[in-house]
Amino acid sequence: MYKVVLLLLFVFCNVTGVASQDVANYVNPFIGTSNFGATYPGPVAPRGMASIAPFNVAGKQNIMEKDSMWLSNPYVHENTFLTGFSQVNLSGVGCPDLGVILVMPTTGKVETNHLKYGSTYSDEVAKAGYYSNTLDKYNIKTEFTTSKRVGVSKFTFPEGQSNILLNLGLGLTNEEGAMVKIISSTEIEGMRSVGSFCYNNPESAYPVYFVAKFSKPADKFGVWKKPRLYEGAEAEWMTYNGKTRIMDNATKMVVGDSIGTYFTYNFSKQETVEVKIGVSYVSIENARENLEEETSDKSFETIYKETFNEWNQLLSKIKVEGGSEEDKINFYTALYHTLIHPNTLNDFNGEYPEIKTGKISNTTGTRYTVFSLWDTYRNLHQLMSLVYPQQQSNMIKSMLAMYDENGWLPKWELNSTETFTMVGDPASIVITDTYLKGIQDFDVEKAYGAMLKSANQIENNPLRPGLKDYIEKGYLTTSSVGSVSTTQEYNAADYSIAMLAKALGKTEDYKTFKKRSLSYKKLFDKNYNLLRPRNPDGTFYEPFNPLAGANFTKSVGYIEGNAWQYAFMIPHDIKGLKKLMGGDENFVNQLQKVFDDNQFDMANEPDIAYPFWFNYVKGEAWRSQKTVRHLANQYFKNKPKGLPGNDDTGTMSAWLVYSMMGIYPASLGDNKYQITSPVYDKIEVSLDSKYYPGKTFTVMTKNNSKENIYIQSIKLNGHSLKRYWITHEEIVNGGVLELEMGPNPKK
Amino acid sequence: MYKVVLLLLFVFCNVTGVASQDVANYVNPFIGTSNFGATYPGPVAPRGMASIAPFNVAGKQNIMEKDSMWLSNPYVHENTFLTGFSQVNLSGVGCPDLGVILVMPTTGKVETNHLKYGSTYSDEVAKAGYYSNTLDKYNIKTEFTTSKRVGVSKFTFPEGQSNILLNLGLGLTNEEGAMVKIISSTEIEGMRSVGSFCYNNPESAYPVYFVAKFSKPADKFGVWKKPRLYEGAEAEWMTYNGKTRIMDNATKMVVGDSIGTYFTYNFSKQETVEVKIGVSYVSIENARENLEEETSDKSFETIYKETFNEWNQLLSKIKVEGGSEEDKINFYTALYHTLIHPNTLNDFNGEYPEIKTGKISNTTGTRYTVFSLWDTYRNLHQLMSLVYPQQQSNMIKSMLAMYDENGWLPKWELNSTETFTMVGDPASIVITDTYLKGIQDFDVEKAYGAMLKSANQIENNPLRPGLKDYIEKGYLTTSSVGSVSTTQEYNAADYSIAMLAKALGKTEDYKTFKKRSLSYKKLFDKNYNLLRPRNPDGTFYEPFNPLAGANFTKSVGYIEGNAWQYAFMIPHDIKGLKKLMGGDENFVNQLQKVFDDNQFDMANEPDIAYPFWFNYVKGEAWRSQKTVRHLANQYFKNKPKGLPGNDDTGTMSAWLVYSMMGIYPASLGDNKYQITSPVYDKIEVSLDSKYYPGKTFTVMTKNNSKENIYIQSIKLNGHSLKRYWITHEEIVNGGVLELEMGPNPKK
Repeated sequence: MYKVVLLLLFVFCNVTGVASQDVANYVNPFIGTSNFGATYPGPVAPRGMASIAPFNVAGKQNIMEKDSMWLSNPYVHENTFLTGFSQVNLSGVGCPDLGVILVMPTTGKVETNHLKYGSTYSDEVAKAGYYSNTLDKYNIKTEFTTSKRVGVSKFTFPEGQSNILLNLGLGLTNEEGAMVKIISSTEIEGMRSVGSFCYNNPESAYPVYFVAKFSKPADKFGVWKKPRLYEGAEAEWMTYNGKTRIMDNATKMVVGDSIGTYFTYNFSKQETVEVKIGVSYVSIENARENLEEETSDKSFETIYKETFNEWNQLLSKIKVEGGSEEDKINFYTALYHTLIHPNTLNDFNGEYPEIKTGKISNTTGTRYTVFSLWDTYRNLHQLMSLVYPQQQSNMIKSMLAMYDENGWLPKWELNSTETFTMVGDPASIVITDTYLKGIQDFDVEKAYGAMLKSANQIENNPLRPGLKDYIEKGYLTTSSVGSVSTTQEYNAADYSIAMLAKALGKTEDYKTFKKRSLSYKKLFDKNYNLLRPRNPDGTFYEPFNPLAGANFTKSVGYIEGNAWQYAFMIPHDIKGLKKLMGGDENFVNQLQKVFDDNQFDMANEPDIAYPFWFNYVKGEAWRSQKTVRHLANQYFKNKPKGLPGNDDTGTMSAWLVYSMMGIYPASLGDNKYQITSPVYDKIEVSLDSKYYPGKTFTVMTKNNSKENIYIQSIKLNGHSLKRYWITHEEIVNGGVLELEMGPNPKK
Repeated sequence: MYKVVLLLLFVFCNVTGVASQDVANYVNPFIGTSNFGATYPGPVAPRGMASIAPFNVAGKQNIMEKDSMWLSNPYVHENTFLTGFSQVNLSGVGCPDLGVILVMPTTGKVETNHLKYGSTYSDEVAKAGYYSNTLDKYNIKTEFTTSKRVGVSKFTFPEGQSNILLNLGLGLTNEEGAMVKIISSTEIEGMRSVGSFCYNNPESAYPVYFVAKFSKPADKFGVWKKPRLYEGAEAEWMTYNGKTRIMDNATKMVVGDSIGTYFTYNFSKQETVEVKIGVSYVSIENARENLEEETSDKSFETIYKETFNEWNQLLSKIKVEGGSEEDKINFYTALYHTLIHPNTLNDFNGEYPEIKTGKISNTTGTRYTVFSLWDTYRNLHQLMSLVYPQQQSNMIKSMLAMYDENGWLPKWELNSTETFTMVGDPASIVITDTYLKGIQDFDVEKAYGAMLKSANQIENNPLRPGLKDYIEKGYLTTSSVGSVSTTQEYNAADYSIAMLAKALGKTEDYKTFKKRSLSYKKLFDKNYNLLRPRNPDGTFYEPFNPLAGANFTKSVGYIEGNAWQYAFMIPHDIKGLKKLMGGDENFVNQLQKVFDDNQFDMANEPDIAYPFWFNYVKGEAWRSQKTVRHLANQYFKNKPKGLPGNDDTGTMSAWLVYSMMGIYPASLGDNKYQITSPVYDKIEVSLDSKYYPGKTFTVMTKNNSKENIYIQSIKLNGHSLKRYWITHEEIVNGGVLELEMGPNPKK
């Protein structure tokens, strides 16, 4: 660990010496690569389709091994045995998928068994858009960068026989099946089957196509295929039963569950080879076009520079001053993590596979994919709306296109498959929030219709199981999985529908859904001051253990959490919840108890807005300031274990970005941000003139330090502000928020 | 068995009532479908790339089951459990390959396990270009025909849910791997991996591509995939581990070792669906073009009629009168069998995959494939040269193109892979024979160069292993497999080289190779009057058992035969052999002993010319007449067991065709046919005016009957002929051969 940190500091100093304004140099892609953060250190362009991850999760040499445990990521920082570099990957997810098309350079005789050709590695370097290491076994220096749809590898080989393997059998999951065709000594095309996210819906597996181009023609090439082992009589006449077969010079199409290719070179001196791999979810032709259009004539260095500049340009939308170097690394790495997913699905020519139908369509804007909405509805999309509204607009348009294509908004969409992971109906929340924030260049009536459909269609509704109970009784019962959690999610969604109805002048709908959104109260048990599952007959579920369900264990009523971790997940009605709990004091006591009793889980979404709810009680905002700053310090660090758990496609990172800025969109439908304690002297957010009247939003602090974490006074645009929240309108009008900090809480 | 025969007679009478001149009606495709004949009863066009075989060799219900024994054919007549209809097949081979792309109609719920959806069948009908049966389990009538590159299925379904499965997992061999993509509710494209003939060279596996078009759009469709069974920890989270997954409405590319598609219909009454499957060894695009160009607008009936007419036109090149109906069935079925392989490899547009290189080339004439030359050099190519010289010319051109492509003439070529099956260097024999027969429209100098290369290149010579010993010592030693057999094969090849050298005026070469061709004598052991293996030190191999090696058992010195079955396989030097054996009488005695002691094996090639060698001794020709007529009667019948064994891509059938005509090309390089006892009153061979001066060659007999099998006198063109052979020149000048027959041998 120390080695890496030191190395990074060295790299950082080196680079910043040249261009100190390049905030992309603060990105440390190692953050989150341990402690189940599930990020990868390899390069990816902003919202890129292609990404490269050093793949070190195969082989018993590794501490965390994909076949021995549920592993959702292609790279684990503690592991040491590397078996390739995967070309499509997911960042910060809790289920395995992708992590395929593994490129591996080796030397000497061609070995096709990854357990034999794998190697330890050293000299790891990871930056925005760049990764490098040295493979100890082969003394090969590896370097990687990517454009949006193309992964670029650069290998520096020693003298002698060198090989570049493309392993299409090995992958992160148990999904198998690939096709490959060597076109020439410099080109390969093929596909790999992926899918079955969370090992669900294996029938929705789908192809990722690729074209690989090599900068130098191979002296020799071929395909390998490992067939299954036959038994019995039919095995007797197969001298090659179960053995990997090497098909030298093969230029015909080869398919199978476990296949790969090798390109071999005989170098008389140290030489480099670059491999560009274009990917596509539409076709091989599109993968080739992606490669040609994005990288054809460009060198590795040029591509890296372009991607770095793109990162830098996007990350520069928020400029910070003050704070420590580590604060900046943490902040910009978090912002970087929020710009990976949702990512681009469409090819360079605009084509993409429709959700469910499998048809190929064409998009004008970016078609986004990887919508982990149960996570991202809470803060990531709000961050996009504020800083990157054009992206957020295209995300909404992508969600509406999905509705056009298969009749439903997404829930947890992945490469045009609906994984139905987690619960609730989060698309409505994201759409309403976006619209209310002023990003309205989408067909809002269509969106509203789509929201109503999932809110009202009782039969054959894939988004809202248990809807009949919910509508009739106000809550799901223990006959549904996660009945309390799901009721809360439906409440939040219904509130968003109500708010959009209101904005659109649909008064009756507003009333209906506003009312529906408050039905969580029926689950409130005064004896516990908590929400509690109800049985189908209406009685409370017995025995009730409010602690059950923590740490991702299963429990009745709750999904990935316990009663404490869900009790305050009423982001649209904290005032109502306060009343239920018996007023401000009881509310604060109960909320403080979550933290004092260590029930707060920073690693998962249900309770991540909790720290901000203290702002809702007069004189208690200091608790939010203290708690947020404490949590940010405790759980987010400049090291591989620097995320509290799964990054959840950037949701945890978005939490940190907002928290470090001192504002957080904790509530729903009211366009408010809670004001807490920022870590910087100055934060400047560039505003997109297409969507917002102001040019920048600025947060400034006075006397801010590690000790002076408490807000003493607030000014907005030079005028004293007597509240701990600020509206979106105030922000995007170009607001300047000034906070005077001090060491003591202002009660 | 009886049922089938009776049924065929019924069909036959029915059809001939309409058009008595259609000799194609004499074809009984059931002949050879038992007793390891390895033919299939389904339709194929003359030298067609596509063919359809009812596939009844999977499932323990069957007497002969592909996974329980070495089975080289997709259909066995005794079997009863059918699991589909394969769309590419080999006829009459001894090793399994192809037998894939299985179409199967079913009814009711979709079942993807062939062991469950398989069915018994009845009402089998097989004709040239047509096959039909009824699947008992489903009450579905199946009918099939083919054009050259397209298989056409017609299913008559009862009312209710009907399904058409395309199983790309099941196949005749253990080769696996397929790709499929459903294009629409009427079209599927894909590929299947085939190869590893004889379970050798698995690394040369290659794709067969296909496009399937359905006459009616499916109401529902999908893909299935059966993944392998995982074990251990990683299996725990796969609820679908090892289970077949059904991917409804899948239109994305699916690959894997065991996949298939289903098309489902809901019929309110009896309905028919036609499925056209175009195949190609080049690409999916070519498979589609083959389908469009050959069958696009045509009905099942039209395609069948065209194919039938093509068969009829080719089979009519030999017209026979007299003999029994069964004689005619046996004869025309045999001729039919000689017109299946070698078959067309190139697509409609002329493209084909080059041998070994994998490049796609274009041919002007037909590019042929499936050259089982160890078999076919003995008589099949001679039959083609006589009756279908244009085809034979293109076969030679195909062989020379292979030489251009990979530097070597073919040995046992299969779909542009060299299987290296069997021994010897038979291409030289075929080329020389063709050239000497007057078919000279190929580059003979190139051919000669190719022949010399395999005859002389000692190092890295894939065609002639053991060549160093052969050249230095005159024979291979026991350090090589089949040393005696291989020496004899090389002798025969060298003799052919000598004869071509002579024809081309290369006198020195002629002398060299003539001398080399007689080195078999060094293996002659006077004590046995047989050829005997020699050890590397020159001594005879001990212990020597002349009977060892019969019935395909392994033995030292011999390949698929014993010392007796090889002793007379000196087709270029029977005179020399006679001398070795001590003169005419000893020779005849020794030869007769082969038959008397039941050492003669009609089921394999080494000794199939034996019956004709009696002609080489004055006064003994009657033995040839008797033996040939006897063998034809004993081993060739109008029933599934009507071939003595493997048809060997038509070699056994060619033996029968010539034998029934009363002429046989037993010797090499002298353009002679031995005259024996024909079964017909009149045989008329149409001669191709492009190659030959005469219009027809005619054999006529007087007093011929089942008893009158002995030739009493011979006239050629009205003049008495005092010999039992006739030259190719005499035949192709339009000769008329008249034989007077009688019941007693003319000694």
